[in-house]
Amino acid sequence: MEPGAAGDSRPAKPGPCVSGAALAASGEPGRRMPTVAAVLPAGGCGERMGVGTPKQFCPILERPLISYTLQALERVCWIKDIVVAVTAENMGVMERIVQKYQHTRVSLAEAGVTRHRSIFNGLKALAEDEPGCKLSKPQVVIIHDAVRPFVEEDILLQVALAAEEHGCSDYDLEFGTECLQLALKYSDTKAKLVEGSPDLWKVTYKRDLSAAESIIKERISQEICMVMDTKEDTERVGYLLEEVLKKELNNVKIVSGVRSHGGRDIQQITLPQCYNFVCVNGAASDFPETQQLLSVLEQSSLSILYPVVVVLVYFLDFKSVPLGQKMESLMWIREFAKEVKKRNILLCGLLICYPQDEQTLQESLKQGAAIIAALIKDRNPGLIGQLLVA
Amino acid sequence: MEPGAAGDSRPAKPGPCVSGAALAASGEPGRRMPTVAAVLPAGGCGERMGVGTPKQFCPILERPLISYTLQALERVCWIKDIVVAVTAENMGVMERIVQKYQHTRVSLAEAGVTRHRSIFNGLKALAEDEPGCKLSKPQVVIIHDAVRPFVEEDILLQVALAAEEHGCSDYDLEFGTECLQLALKYSDTKAKLVEGSPDLWKVTYKRDLSAAESIIKERISQEICMVMDTKEDTERVGYLLEEVLKKELNNVKIVSGVRSHGGRDIQQITLPQCYNFVCVNGAASDFPETQQLLSVLEQSSLSILYPVVVVLVYFLDFKSVPLGQKMESLMWIREFAKEVKKRNILLCGLLICYPQDEQTLQESLKQGAAIIAALIKDRNPGLIGQLLVA
Repeated sequence: MEPGAAGDSRPAKPGPCVSGAALAASGEPGRRMPTVAAVLPAGGCGERMGVGTPKQFCPILERPLISYTLQALERVCWIKDIVVAVTAENMGVMERIVQKYQHTRVSLAEAGVTRHRSIFNGLKALAEDEPGCKLSKPQVVIIHDAVRPFVEEDILLQVALAAEEHGCSDYDLEFGTECLQLALKYSDTKAKLVEGSPDLWKVTYKRDLSAAESIIKERISQEICMVMDTKEDTERVGYLLEEVLKKELNNVKIVSGVRSHGGRDIQQITLPQCYNFVCVNGAASDFPETQQLLSVLEQSSLSILYPVVVVLVYFLDFKSVPLGQKMESLMWIREFAKEVKKRNILLCGLLICYPQDEQTLQESLKQGAAIIAALIKDRNPGLIGQLLVA
Repeated sequence: MEPGAAGDSRPAKPGPCVSGAALAASGEPGRRMPTVAAVLPAGGCGERMGVGTPKQFCPILERPLISYTLQALERVCWIKDIVVAVTAENMGVMERIVQKYQHTRVSLAEAGVTRHRSIFNGLKALAEDEPGCKLSKPQVVIIHDAVRPFVEEDILLQVALAAEEHGCSDYDLEFGTECLQLALKYSDTKAKLVEGSPDLWKVTYKRDLSAAESIIKERISQEICMVMDTKEDTERVGYLLEEVLKKELNNVKIVSGVRSHGGRDIQQITLPQCYNFVCVNGAASDFPETQQLLSVLEQSSLSILYPVVVVLVYFLDFKSVPLGQKMESLMWIREFAKEVKKRNILLCGLLICYPQDEQTLQESLKQGAAIIAALIKDRNPGLIGQLLVA
C-alpha cells in the first residue's frame, strides 16, 4: 500500500491563509521558521494531455489549473514569495491569471528550455539583490510542480524544515515503488525523503483534469448557507427544508440564519468560505431584497475563485395562486441570472408546494433537497435562471 | 513520455460485440485465433479507496465498476468464457450483478487469500473437465484486473497472440519507468512486454472513481438522436434546433428522423448505442405518443447498462398560450418521469418560445442547446421531471 493513501478522500477546505499553529503542531515549538519562497516551473507544453492547451492552463470550473496551485501555496502564510517560470509566449496569459484571480504574492520569471533551467531562472529572480526588487532572498526555496494543485500546508512545512536541516535544495515527492529509487538516487547526498500523500498527485492526463474537477466540486459543496426570510410561516417551512437537507445531504454542513429587512446582516449569517446559498423567501418576497442579497455576495469577492450557487426558494400555495401564475411572476429570475452569471454566480429558482398534507410536503421537501444537491454538485451554468418545481 | 499517452482522450464507443476484423487488422490475416478465456481476480477489499465498499463494487452511474470491466471483455467476441474470482462473502452480490446487467459469458469462482490464489482458482474452474460443465478448456487465458474497466480489444488481441507465441501465462501492463523493471524481472523467462495505453489505468483511489465516471459520462454523451414530430411547423423549428445543437455541441454526433404516428419506426431512427434522445413535439402532441416512444426505449434494453436521457421539447407560442398554462398542461411529465426513472430513463421537459424574431429565436435555441448539454453531460437524476424553459 502506498503511504498515506487513506487520506485521499479527505476534503480540505478551500480557504484563506490557514497557517499559524503549523510550526507548533510540527512538534518543534521552539524552532524558528526559516524564510521560505516557492518556485513553480510551469514551462510545460502538455503533450500527454491530448489537448491543445498546456495542462497548467487547462480550465477547471473556468479557472486555469495553475491558479488552484497558486491558491494552495498562498494559503500558507509563511511562504513569502512565489515565482512562476513560464515561457515567453505564455507570459501574457500568466499575467492575466495573476491579476484576474488576485494572486498577491506571485512574481513571474521566464522559463528555460528544460525544467531545471526554469527552476534556475526562478531561483535567480529570488537571489537578485537589486534595489527596488520586491523579492527578498529566502533561506529555503520549495520547488513545486504547477500541476499539483492539492498540496497541503503540513507537507510543505515538513519539506521546508527538512530542507533547512538537511540542506537539500529541491524536494521530490513520489509514491510506491519509486520511493526506493529516489532514496537510492540521493543516497550519497544530504537528502531526506519526505513522504507524500495521494493528495499530491500530478495532473498529467485528461482524466486527471476530470478527477481534479470532481475533487474541487466536492470540496466547495461541503457547506450550505441558508438565509431565511423573517415572515413567520416561511420560516417554519424553511426550517423544515433545512431539516430535510441535513438528513438527505448528510455529509454537508448546513448553517442558517434569518434575514432582517435591511440585508446588512447577511454577512453575519454566511460562513467565511461557503459557496452555496439557499435563500428561503416569503410569498411576498420581491426582487429588491434578492438583489440586495446578491450585492452582498458580489462584494464579498467569494465568486472570484469559484462559481457560487444561489438557489432562491419560494413556497407555492396552489389553492390561492395557480402554478402558472406563480411561475410567470418569477420570470425575472431568468434575466437576472444572466446578469449575475457575469460575476460567476449561478442563480436558480426552486418552487416548493405548500401547504399540503404532511406526507406530500415531506416528499416535496425531499425532492427539493435532491434538486438543490444536483445544482450544487454539478454547478452547471447551462441551468441558470431555471425555475425548478418540487 | 509514457507510451501511447496521446490516446487517453479517445472516446471508445460503449457497444455490443466489436470483434471480427480484429485478427485481420493485427497484420496476421492467415493466423488462426487461439481459444481464449479470461480470469478476473476480484477478491480485493479496497483499502486504498478510503470507502467501505471494495472498489470493484463501487457504483459508477449506479452500476458497479466490475460490470463495466465485464462489459468491456464481453464486447470481444473471441473471449469465450470469463471467470470472476470473488470472496465467499461477495458471491451473492456478484451473482446479482451478473443477472441484473445481463452478463452472459461470466462464471464465478471463489477467491483465495492472495491474488495468485484467486487466479489459480479461476484457472482451475476453466480446466475442470466435468460432464455438464459449461466452461471449455482454452488455449490462452488472459488475467485481467477487475478494476481496469477501459481495456480495448486491440490490446487484448496483442496479449492473446503474444501469449500463444511466447507461452507467457499472465500479462502485465505497466507504464513509464516501471516498464524497464518489468522487462528485467522477466528477462530470464519466455516473456514479451505488451505496451499498454493510458486507457488501461487501474481504479485505485477515490479520485479514480470520479475520473472513471467522467470518462463514462463523456463516452455515452457522444451521440444524440432527435425524433421529430411530423407536424410541419414543428419540424421546421426542430431542424433549426438540430442545427444549433450541431454547432454548439460540435463534438457530438447528432442524427434525426421523423416519427410517423405509429411509433414503430422509432427503432429505425435511433442509433444502435445512443443513450440520449431529444424528442421534438408538436403543439398538440400528447401523452400517448410520448408513452409509445418510451415503451420502445424500454423494450430496447438500452437503459440496462446506462441511464438514458430523454428530453421532450415543446414549442411555446406566447401569443396564443400563456407560459403558465402551457406549463400546467405539461405537469404530467413530473409523474411520468418518476415512473420511467425506475427503468433508468431520465426524463425532462424543455419549452422553447416560438415564434419570435430571428435573433431572439436563435438565443432561445442556443440556451436550449446549453440545457440539453447540461442534462446529457451531468445525467443527474435529481432533475428528472423538471420543465426547463429556453
